[in-house]
Amino acid sequence: MIVMKIHDLAMGPYPARVRIALAEKNMKSRVQFVPVDLLKGEHKTPEFLAKNYSGTLPVLELEDGTFISECTAITQYLDTLDGHPTLTGTTPLEQGLIHMMTKRAELEMLDAISIYFHHATPGLGPDVERYQNKEWGLYQRDKALRGMRYFDTILRTQPFVAGEVFSMADIAVIGGLIFAGYLDVAAPAECDALGAWYDKMQARPSVKNRVTMSDKATA
Amino acid sequence: MIVMKIHDLAMGPYPARVRIALAEKNMKSRVQFVPVDLLKGEHKTPEFLAKNYSGTLPVLELEDGTFISECTAITQYLDTLDGHPTLTGTTPLEQGLIHMMTKRAELEMLDAISIYFHHATPGLGPDVERYQNKEWGLYQRDKALRGMRYFDTILRTQPFVAGEVFSMADIAVIGGLIFAGYLDVAAPAECDALGAWYDKMQARPSVKNRVTMSDKATA
Ligand SMILES: N[C@@H](CCC(=O)N[C@@H](CS)C(=O)NCC(=O)O)C(=O)O
Ligand SMILES: N[C@@H](CCC(=O)N[C@@H](CS)C(=O)NCC(=O)O)C(=O)O
Repeated sequence: MIVMKIHDLAMGPYPARVRIALAEKNMKSRVQFVPVDLLKGEHKTPEFLAKNYSGTLPVLELEDGTFISECTAITQYLDTLDGHPTLTGTTPLEQGLIHMMTKRAELEMLDAISIYFHHATPGLGPDVERYQNKEWGLYQRDKALRGMRYFDTILRTQPFVAGEVFSMADIAVIGGLIFAGYLDVAAPAECDALGAWYDKMQARPSVKNRVTMSDKATA
Repeated sequence: MIVMKIHDLAMGPYPARVRIALAEKNMKSRVQFVPVDLLKGEHKTPEFLAKNYSGTLPVLELEDGTFISECTAITQYLDTLDGHPTLTGTTPLEQGLIHMMTKRAELEMLDAISIYFHHATPGLGPDVERYQNKEWGLYQRDKALRGMRYFDTILRTQPFVAGEVFSMADIAVIGGLIFAGYLDVAAPAECDALGAWYDKMQARPSVKNRVTMSDKATA
């Protein structure tokens, strides 16, 4: 029954995006999680880099040995597998807007927080973080805070990040706020719409149970 | 007949991606190009930022006033509009791999070259480049050179970036090499497969005529 593997880190903000997508799609029982030890730099070994040139998690491994990395690409794949996409849109316009808002969430918030983590904090430790540019890291943290204000503005006028329905774009913003939470980077006080939306998101079973789902899936 | 606008820069490497996609889809006559003056910082004005929060080109404007930014999102939209996608895949696996390779081309090459341009060269000039981090820019240039070696390796075993057919992922690598060409960042000498592939790409009408297509489209 288990046909796919996910190279994963249970607590990771990017892996969380795929865990949430899997739960939303009711596909938890079809995957097995393979933990990768980021703190030991396992993702920078030649074995891992052969799976994903960029050396990041998560990576989906199909039964035939094909690897798909990048959260957006993995989500696109998983969401369309059953012929009934619910996270990436069905019309060209929905698909376009969801891809746009997902990319924007990465660019303006999630990836910015990640750069802050890897460059302006100890990150994964000196053995893994071989090059740091602290000034750039701090600059990206400020960019992420502006990004939070932007998404707050969006969520004042619509219930979800890409419009009227929950999508991959919400998941990307959730990933950003999970990461920011780990680093005590709080959203600016005036972001109530973002806060109210995040409370609702955290109540979704897919989001609430994301860390423990691996035990169930591999049991 | 003309139903869409594209906020554009004829010579821009990112706008080139959408121009190539339009030509590949035979949709040139359905769009009108609206030039945006990046050297004057027109993309950082409140008017433009209302169209695209990230302040970048290209931006697609639909007849009803909806804006779609991000090359991947615009391409996804345009490619699926006629119900016959040719650039973004038709099966879940094709879609997943094309999205992955497109993102990888951005992350590991095109976006890295762009950061080099904006941070370690005069970029768009002192009035527009308000913050530069030269060390980061140079680091990204080296990353882009490694990325070129990676795509060279890929193109030694398959004819196109995402496999057996031309796709959005090829267009992203083309964008990276156009940008690198402007900046005299040459691909490492040993990258013959990348070079041979790029020669073939440059012979495609969609690539060859991308800069002049606007005149025809708006005529
Ligand atoms: N663009 C990638 C980014 C993934 C990413 O950065 N993942 C983190 C784990 S939460 C990682 O692998 N970090 C290790 C590192 O950057 O050294 C995606 O969207 O999947
Ligand atoms: N992520 C965007 C990037 C677009 C981009 O950087 N476009 C360039 C034009 S070639 C731009 O607008 N640069 C202006 C700036 O960054 O100040 C996309 O894929 O569309």
